[in-house]
Amino acid sequence: MVSRYKELKRECYEANMQLNALGLVICTFGNVSAVDRPSGAFAIKPSGVPYEELKAEDIVVVDYDTNCIEGSLRPSSDTKTHALLYKNWEDIGGIAHSHATYSVAWAQAQKDIPIFGTTHADHLTVDIPCAPPMKDNLIEGNYEHNTAIQIMECFKEKGLSHTEVEMVLLGNHGPFTWGETAAKAVYNSKVLEAVAQMACLTLQINPEALRLKDSLIKKHHDRKHGKDAYYGQ
Amino acid sequence: MVSRYKELKRECYEANMQLNALGLVICTFGNVSAVDRPSGAFAIKPSGVPYEELKAEDIVVVDYDTNCIEGSLRPSSDTKTHALLYKNWEDIGGIAHSHATYSVAWAQAQKDIPIFGTTHADHLTVDIPCAPPMKDNLIEGNYEHNTAIQIMECFKEKGLSHTEVEMVLLGNHGPFTWGETAAKAVYNSKVLEAVAQMACLTLQINPEALRLKDSLIKKHHDRKHGKDAYYGQ
Amino acid sequence: MVSRYKELKRECYEANMQLNALGLVICTFGNVSAVDRPSGAFAIKPSGVPYEELKAEDIVVVDYDTNCIEGSLRPSSDTKTHALLYKNWEDIGGIAHSHATYSVAWAQAQKDIPIFGTTHADHLTVDIPCAPPMKDNLIEGNYEHNTAIQIMECFKEKGLSHTEVEMVLLGNHGPFTWGETAAKAVYNSKVLEAVAQMACLTLQINPEALRLKDSLIKKHHDRKHGKDAYYGQ
Amino acid sequence: MVSRYKELKRECYEANMQLNALGLVICTFGNVSAVDRPSGAFAIKPSGVPYEELKAEDIVVVDYDTNCIEGSLRPSSDTKTHALLYKNWEDIGGIAHSHATYSVAWAQAQKDIPIFGTTHADHLTVDIPCAPPMKDNLIEGNYEHNTAIQIMECFKEKGLSHTEVEMVLLGNHGPFTWGETAAKAVYNSKVLEAVAQMACLTLQINPEALRLKDSLIKKHHDRKHGKDAYYGQ
Repeated sequence: MVSRYKELKRECYEANMQLNALGLVICTFGNVSAVDRPSGAFAIKPSGVPYEELKAEDIVVVDYDTNCIEGSLRPSSDTKTHALLYKNWEDIGGIAHSHATYSVAWAQAQKDIPIFGTTHADHLTVDIPCAPPMKDNLIEGNYEHNTAIQIMECFKEKGLSHTEVEMVLLGNHGPFTWGETAAKAVYNSKVLEAVAQMACLTLQINPEALRLKDSLIKKHHDRKHGKDAYYGQ
Repeated sequence: MVSRYKELKRECYEANMQLNALGLVICTFGNVSAVDRPSGAFAIKPSGVPYEELKAEDIVVVDYDTNCIEGSLRPSSDTKTHALLYKNWEDIGGIAHSHATYSVAWAQAQKDIPIFGTTHADHLTVDIPCAPPMKDNLIEGNYEHNTAIQIMECFKEKGLSHTEVEMVLLGNHGPFTWGETAAKAVYNSKVLEAVAQMACLTLQINPEALRLKDSLIKKHHDRKHGKDAYYGQ
Repeated sequence: MVSRYKELKRECYEANMQLNALGLVICTFGNVSAVDRPSGAFAIKPSGVPYEELKAEDIVVVDYDTNCIEGSLRPSSDTKTHALLYKNWEDIGGIAHSHATYSVAWAQAQKDIPIFGTTHADHLTVDIPCAPPMKDNLIEGNYEHNTAIQIMECFKEKGLSHTEVEMVLLGNHGPFTWGETAAKAVYNSKVLEAVAQMACLTLQINPEALRLKDSLIKKHHDRKHGKDAYYGQ
Repeated sequence: MVSRYKELKRECYEANMQLNALGLVICTFGNVSAVDRPSGAFAIKPSGVPYEELKAEDIVVVDYDTNCIEGSLRPSSDTKTHALLYKNWEDIGGIAHSHATYSVAWAQAQKDIPIFGTTHADHLTVDIPCAPPMKDNLIEGNYEHNTAIQIMECFKEKGLSHTEVEMVLLGNHGPFTWGETAAKAVYNSKVLEAVAQMACLTLQINPEALRLKDSLIKKHHDRKHGKDAYYGQ
């Protein structure tokens, strides 16, 4: 049988393998999805399958209500989180989730990651937000669905834009990142992990370290974004 | 000569090689065993053999009293610990021991690892127990035999079930993990090491970090265990 | 078309690949240049190109005013920093910049790296300087040009010689290193990262650790430098 | 020309390559030697040669007064330290020196490494000694020769035996290890580095961590040493 989603599944497969190749995955604790907007469907890693055994044809395709469209395996247990984010944030193309070490450490510490340097400022101009753990009634309810709500509530409360801040820590859990493509979402997971490690070491060396000053934040952001951007090809 | 235990030795060999491949082993400091319940025998790594030189046929098979059944090499110096755990915990199929860095650090610190996040809660719902170092008379006696007693006493005192908590730190020494198979025991050693590193970093970032709240512990446990589990295939 | 700069581009390419191979690069955050003094030109990595895709022929050649001499890609966004350093420091042959983890951590902490041991003293006899972040008017102006000014001002104020101290941290940003060749500049980036990690751990073990005493600094410096040097071939 | 020392140079070469393969070497900062007692000669790495370029025939052979017997390259700058240790400790067969990260951090912190666990006790029953930095007149004199004197003085003052304690940290510098063979010396460098990292993390988790109690120290030592040893083949 010829798949309508062969291309999408290939993109999703490669992004999942890249998440693992970048050292962001422990065991099977991670998943990346890629969305096809015209057909209202997204591809996601099957649940609990080791990366060494994963094949492109194992990737599962579901709609925004997580109904299975294609694939014989059970999709990631986090599928409802991905689904609701796609439904609400119509301009994102991919989502990545991992349990990368330093990102999880900040999430478990329930702290925003302060913007200490230009590595951070080249990607976003605010502290990396850490959403608080959910209230008990949300946890007992539709947990993975509510995980997406928790993330969106956090952005609303802090006045953040999901197109300018493509990453979040979920308190006690770990990082979610997104972007225009699944590959970009994975890239953002790598940046987040690197920035998380650097910030942890910065505070170890100098517990009084200062956040980056506004002029530098603005400069590094403008180098990579907007009409006068001059980074990259 | 055809071995009755060829399959068992192969399983044990592969689990030992996996322990090393996962980065949990320094030099020769680690050993994994696999049990064959019907014949009352288990296979274990020979003592002090480097992983690069280890072959499946080097694996030693012994009974629960550590009498040699098959193999020409001396079994791991920790064989008596494995033997007594198999004798008492009749539903486990494999045991792993290593000197993995972060697990040993917590064991040397003589601290239980607090349950700080969902990576931990996906596997067990309590702090990872650290058994205290043995009393002097036990150390001077049948040391490796008494190591197993020390582990079982710790579980009894803390009211823990070895089927729900498949890992322990032995104070001043290091981690022991187990599971339905030798491969699962090795997996648990990897999870323990990852959780140990994350917890260490969490406390570095926030010395006042709070343990996971009960509702989240329960939710993440139920995702992977019991009749309503929905993680994995 | 035959390139006049084939050799120079090859040298620059190999130094960039070495920076990555030594584990000093995250994503695309790094660049190395190599200068050809007779022709007043230097070769530098193109902006934002992943290392796996980089080819020697992609390397861009520019003059000291950053006018393009050869190459179809946009040069590194840090090209103006390299250019001004080459213009002012006429005896250096290569420059390297990265966002290596421990080097960035010290830069973000805005601390000089104290000279704690002989690994450090074998390369330079003073603390590794951390230049303060730029003043706002410099940031808003010709930023990458002013980055070089900031580095040179720091050396002037501290009375340092750029031939004796071939490395600097730029506050809130990261390391710049240089040397007689591009390969030497990359080597210095590796030394800086190693020394940065060792110093961080030294202070963790002993917050009161003392700087190396003068007699040892002098001895280790003289082993590798000057007419009585006896290190290397 | 056929070498009298082909075997010795091969042993020395392989031990040097192993030091690098075990992740204990940064750049060219390390050297291993192997002695041939009957001929009063030892083989050692040439100075400053990268490991990727090192060949067995590059290894230099010298006598205990560091006179060259065979080889066209300059021997390691630390050769005099090796020579004096061989002269005085007649039962050792190999010596290793590196700038491994955690070992150097303890040396720079000028702290003995406390015996916190059985990984340590399986190899030695006391804290790993850190010799103080040399007095100024020794530094200004025959520095590398005096380095060996500093090590031996430290052992004398602390009442340590070099056959029971096969490792030392030299304050502000780094580790020296030795053993019956060059391979054993390298193994001891790896053990030292692992124990150094574990001890650093132990104190991070619990600044009040207690040293191992005497009964456990004795037990783990006896498992591997003496007539009742039962570890290894």
